Amino acid sequence: MPTISQRGVEMPASPIRKLVPLANKAKEKGIKVYHLNIGQPDLPTPEVAMEAMRNIDRTVLEYSPSEGIRSFREKLVGYYAKFHIQVSADDIIITTGGSEAVFFSFMAALDPGDEIIVPEPAYANYMAFAISAGAVIKTVPSSIEEGFALPSVEKFEQLITPRTKAILICNPNNPTGYLYTQKEMNQLRDLVKKYDLFLFSDEVYREFCYTGAPYISAFHLKGIENNVVLVDSVSKRYSECGIRIGALVTKNEQIKTSVMKWCQARLSPPLIGQIIAEASLDTPEEYMLEVYNEYVERRKFLIDGLNRIPGCYSPIPMGAFYTVAKLPVDDADAFCAWCLSEFEYEGQTVMMAPASGFYTTPGLGKNEVRMAYVLKKEDLANALVVLEKALEAYPGRVL
Amino acid sequence: MPTISQRGVEMPASPIRKLVPLANKAKEKGIKVYHLNIGQPDLPTPEVAMEAMRNIDRTVLEYSPSEGIRSFREKLVGYYAKFHIQVSADDIIITTGGSEAVFFSFMAALDPGDEIIVPEPAYANYMAFAISAGAVIKTVPSSIEEGFALPSVEKFEQLITPRTKAILICNPNNPTGYLYTQKEMNQLRDLVKKYDLFLFSDEVYREFCYTGAPYISAFHLKGIENNVVLVDSVSKRYSECGIRIGALVTKNEQIKTSVMKWCQARLSPPLIGQIIAEASLDTPEEYMLEVYNEYVERRKFLIDGLNRIPGCYSPIPMGAFYTVAKLPVDDADAFCAWCLSEFEYEGQTVMMAPASGFYTTPGLGKNEVRMAYVLKKEDLANALVVLEKALEAYPGRVL
Repeated sequence: MPTISQRGVEMPASPIRKLVPLANKAKEKGIKVYHLNIGQPDLPTPEVAMEAMRNIDRTVLEYSPSEGIRSFREKLVGYYAKFHIQVSADDIIITTGGSEAVFFSFMAALDPGDEIIVPEPAYANYMAFAISAGAVIKTVPSSIEEGFALPSVEKFEQLITPRTKAILICNPNNPTGYLYTQKEMNQLRDLVKKYDLFLFSDEVYREFCYTGAPYISAFHLKGIENNVVLVDSVSKRYSECGIRIGALVTKNEQIKTSVMKWCQARLSPPLIGQIIAEASLDTPEEYMLEVYNEYVERRKFLIDGLNRIPGCYSPIPMGAFYTVAKLPVDDADAFCAWCLSEFEYEGQTVMMAPASGFYTTPGLGKNEVRMAYVLKKEDLANALVVLEKALEAYPGRVL
Repeated sequence: MPTISQRGVEMPASPIRKLVPLANKAKEKGIKVYHLNIGQPDLPTPEVAMEAMRNIDRTVLEYSPSEGIRSFREKLVGYYAKFHIQVSADDIIITTGGSEAVFFSFMAALDPGDEIIVPEPAYANYMAFAISAGAVIKTVPSSIEEGFALPSVEKFEQLITPRTKAILICNPNNPTGYLYTQKEMNQLRDLVKKYDLFLFSDEVYREFCYTGAPYISAFHLKGIENNVVLVDSVSKRYSECGIRIGALVTKNEQIKTSVMKWCQARLSPPLIGQIIAEASLDTPEEYMLEVYNEYVERRKFLIDGLNRIPGCYSPIPMGAFYTVAKLPVDDADAFCAWCLSEFEYEGQTVMMAPASGFYTTPGLGKNEVRMAYVLKKEDLANALVVLEKALEAYPGRVL
């Protein structure tokens, strides 16, 4: 039998994935599992989007242009303008989910061996795409004690080598819910300018900023217009993760030309997803407001609840719909597995994402988990009770 | 401005892509362009597929499993069994188009610097995915004089080095329409066994075999079950290229495990596309037969017409819906561009794919083009008249 690729072996399997069979077994035993582990909103997809899908009157479901449907890209120009992001339709390339936008950014900008600096904890799949591109991720740790604020400029500069090509941020942040301040964004701008780096900015959660603090897009930063590559997706804001539609937005002509080669190789992004996403841009303000208010309440409910459990601590996330919380346990990986395989409270248990999957520095986040507040309040309430009981019963409890 | 990646620069831009602006200009001038250049069938998507889309009654368009929807994968088992391909649902991973299946095969099986042997002319995008994976494609030329038959075993063996990891075929073939014989497939099997290689087999055109000669799947070959990775797609057979649904089928557990890591990184294949594709498996036999008969007629019509034009020659393609034809011209790239930019006959012209994009050996296919017979007969008739007139008028004509 031929040997498979080494990178396939090295590719980290997400710690959540190891929990999936345990969760399935728990469910088979009739246990109700509260999924705090995934960022799949339970909110309905906007009706205007569903209607657009049902009313497609084409006879052939044919290829769309490799860069995406023109009318959709033109409509996105207006959407971005509402956030003071001034781009043209030619700056927007439609991708198969935000995932593909990340991957194509890496392929177009980075050669094998090139380095990207990323604040950790970070979205785990960035690592997979870096491995695919042969690029190396260097992480700057942020900490729960400082609310996951951007590490100091010095910490970034210590990592810069001749192979450093880019900084990658997610803002508002997955997994921490942190929202970068104007001051922090200016620091990043100065770094990007000083070392002539790319700034990859994943801003898929821009609709979800809760504290009144402004959302600062990488495109708001002056003087680095040619360095910015924005990663976007309609998945979270319209609760339509399954249609796999994202976008890569850049003013850098060389990046556009290079990205288009990969776009052409994979022929086209999903046609029906684009039709749905384009229609979603007409989602009524009331829907967006209702969703927003729902998350505001859930956030308050979850964070208050967590901070009332003895030994638990969560900072107050300013955006997205996640928080990274500290638990009074020896090992969050073991605790999360134990909750699914050894524990139940009145026929219920919880599934959480161990934070270890979001750090690359070994040992960091050992007693942290990421929770998503994408469940309705009653379920969050039950999940909190279950979590408190689990922590009381867990043999590896640490105070 | 930071420099982009070298691979982005090296990535070949398809010669068809250079023609697109010329075609657009011709259309702006009011010229009717017959598109013989693309494999986008004009036939309607089956009604059963369109109905499934319109009747989706979910409220949330959520992520599907990374490996694809279980019921769809189970139904595919029965589909493959009709072609005597015996696989289980666990052997089938749903991908975002056949493109992603090719890419994930490469990522999972090949390390940077590993080599794949491919008979040329070959589907141009294999090259792009090889560059993405850092793999090297070595080509064995097949020729129009021999009807694009599989080159001899010796030709393959001459290319084998310690870095050779795989052979890649497309059967029935895009761009040539060639269908590999049992004898040729046995030769490939022996090679794969002898050198312990992977056999990547792109079989997306299996429905389109016209001569009564049997379609031999890589899975029909005994003794190399763990070496075979089959690439599939619903795009062509149900005229639904836009839904981006394909599959990677393998019994090799290591490849499955590795491919799943990439699947998880990109989260999931398109949900709605999977629902449509699953419903498409219930397409009535009459539809498939009608489509088949239509292609049989178009094939005969196009090939007969081509071989009647002085100086033109096309072998008779046995499958798929393409042919590579030889034209009496100095340079097919220049001729195809000239047809779009300098020529018209009664307000019409033709767009063809220069074969140079399907060869990697410089100079091969210089007077060849690929034509797809995905247009209705009246359009093919007009296209043939226009082509004949163009060849008469072309300054670079060679006899």
